[in-house]
Amino acid sequence: MIKNDRFLRALRREPVDATPVWLMRQAGRYLPEYRETRRKAGSFMAMATNPELACEVTLQPLRRFDLDAAILFSDILTIPDAMGLGLSFAEGEGPRFARPVRTQGDIAKLAVPDMAGSLRYVMDAVSLIRKELDNSVPLIGFSGSPWTLACYMVEGGGSDNFARVKAMALDEPAALHRLLDVVTDAVIAYLSAQRAAGAQALQIFDTWGGMLAPHLYREFSLRYLQRIAQTLERGSGMDKAPLILFGKGNAPYLEELAASGAEGVGVDWTVSLAEARRRTGDRVALQGNLDPATLYASPDAIRGEAKWTMDSFGAGPGHIFNLGHGMSPDMNPDHVKVLVDAVHAFQR
Amino acid sequence: MIKNDRFLRALRREPVDATPVWLMRQAGRYLPEYRETRRKAGSFMAMATNPELACEVTLQPLRRFDLDAAILFSDILTIPDAMGLGLSFAEGEGPRFARPVRTQGDIAKLAVPDMAGSLRYVMDAVSLIRKELDNSVPLIGFSGSPWTLACYMVEGGGSDNFARVKAMALDEPAALHRLLDVVTDAVIAYLSAQRAAGAQALQIFDTWGGMLAPHLYREFSLRYLQRIAQTLERGSGMDKAPLILFGKGNAPYLEELAASGAEGVGVDWTVSLAEARRRTGDRVALQGNLDPATLYASPDAIRGEAKWTMDSFGAGPGHIFNLGHGMSPDMNPDHVKVLVDAVHAFQR
Repeated sequence: MIKNDRFLRALRREPVDATPVWLMRQAGRYLPEYRETRRKAGSFMAMATNPELACEVTLQPLRRFDLDAAILFSDILTIPDAMGLGLSFAEGEGPRFARPVRTQGDIAKLAVPDMAGSLRYVMDAVSLIRKELDNSVPLIGFSGSPWTLACYMVEGGGSDNFARVKAMALDEPAALHRLLDVVTDAVIAYLSAQRAAGAQALQIFDTWGGMLAPHLYREFSLRYLQRIAQTLERGSGMDKAPLILFGKGNAPYLEELAASGAEGVGVDWTVSLAEARRRTGDRVALQGNLDPATLYASPDAIRGEAKWTMDSFGAGPGHIFNLGHGMSPDMNPDHVKVLVDAVHAFQR
Repeated sequence: MIKNDRFLRALRREPVDATPVWLMRQAGRYLPEYRETRRKAGSFMAMATNPELACEVTLQPLRRFDLDAAILFSDILTIPDAMGLGLSFAEGEGPRFARPVRTQGDIAKLAVPDMAGSLRYVMDAVSLIRKELDNSVPLIGFSGSPWTLACYMVEGGGSDNFARVKAMALDEPAALHRLLDVVTDAVIAYLSAQRAAGAQALQIFDTWGGMLAPHLYREFSLRYLQRIAQTLERGSGMDKAPLILFGKGNAPYLEELAASGAEGVGVDWTVSLAEARRRTGDRVALQGNLDPATLYASPDAIRGEAKWTMDSFGAGPGHIFNLGHGMSPDMNPDHVKVLVDAVHAFQR
């Protein structure tokens, strides 16, 4: 049994003694101990592909802060990397693929990677983290969404305008759907394998779905999130590994996301939790949604905005406190402690 | 009388013979003739502050495309530059202020600039463009929104996270309101002077309002847009210079923007015009909202998405076709022609 099960209880919309809280990218460069591990590893990928180092950085924020969940330290681009695209991170820049997917021939060559082969290191990290956590808090596994992975695969890295993948959506929709189909199969296999290795909850990051016009979001992102939510085997009862769909800019689609079959929906800070809750009708747990930039303000302001967020959700169960997006390297760890403690001190 | 008054008629929600279209950043680096003028001028600011050159680049897209409005070529940061912040553009980078606004002392020193002095070059450009247009199409004047200008003034340039200005909003709200108050007075004076110099419509670009949480958007951005819409003198009847409030990420606030007193609301592509129209209830004209990345796709796809946008608005007057955000330097001018012609060919 998990000693602190607030996070899983909130996902089941059961009462909790205090609001559970974890923070997207809680393991990261804002922590000096992370930078030290990263320095020793030599590169980001050397750290991410080494289960011991991935375990170490996963646990670092939990030693400092009273967080209610751990999240696997990894990258959302492990799947395309295992598909043979050749992932690298240049210092101070974003991710790059040596072999982006640009043609129908490139797409035809894509296959679901072997979870026991090229992605074994992820499952080994999950198992090791579970062992080290020793049932103190639950462990969250994760994946990028099919659309978000497709963005990086087609663009070959980050992009300001998504020119190539959006042009593919309009000019070669059947080809893009083939790409998304195989990526969706891979995401399902990947999350299933993480669950088998010990992940107790699963989150999908749809970082770039909100960059699409509504009719294209529904066709190229939402459709595949729905397929995952409906077909991903994740157990039942207390053994169920609940699925959270997080998406930046997903506020226009909250009703559809709540009806997808997922147990939780993560939202960014551009919608109030009061509105999100009204529109999702308590069909799902809600996760979020403090603007991460709040951590640049003073402790008093952080406490005030955290209270605002929780007041906005209102009474009753089903809220997991989080930021509306990931943390940044220049954030102050002392402010993170202020935030976590403020969430726990709040009485609904 | 203006020969082509479709744009102004649509803003008054009167019937038009074809949907009017202009494109945000229609004068810009995607045009070879723009790059040539820019090269001769030596720098962006040398071009923007020279009325003859500003007039030349304003007119360039109208020589190529059948656009229904011209928009003053300028920068949204002319006001803070005239306030003494020292604007510059490093090659290949965004804008920079030599003297950003960080302290209460910095804010206390800010004053509304002299429209006949340090901003005279803008009014001279407006007058010259009006003369050169010879009443062929109307001329739009513009300003950045108070919040968007404050973002640049406090950050000292562009920002990924708006850490400083968001911290100021939470930690020193009274100081930020003083800054926004003087900037709002300056925006009103600036738009009034552009109208006096000949601008026949006025647009405010709230580029960064959508980065705020809803309670902070209402306090720090919307409040000042409302003040401008309610107090900016803009004539009456056929002489009225209508005001358009454009905001990236403004979809959550369409009802409030429609009730602000502005004649038009510009929206980005993350909301359908069907929904925008339903929520604004034909109280305002709607401007938008094709994803600019559509211009990277094929002519057939551009025509299809343009039709989708116009079908989404539906029957009846009050639609001005535009992109949901500005054009980019790597766009193909031939595709712009395809788009403009497709909009005009469409029969509602």
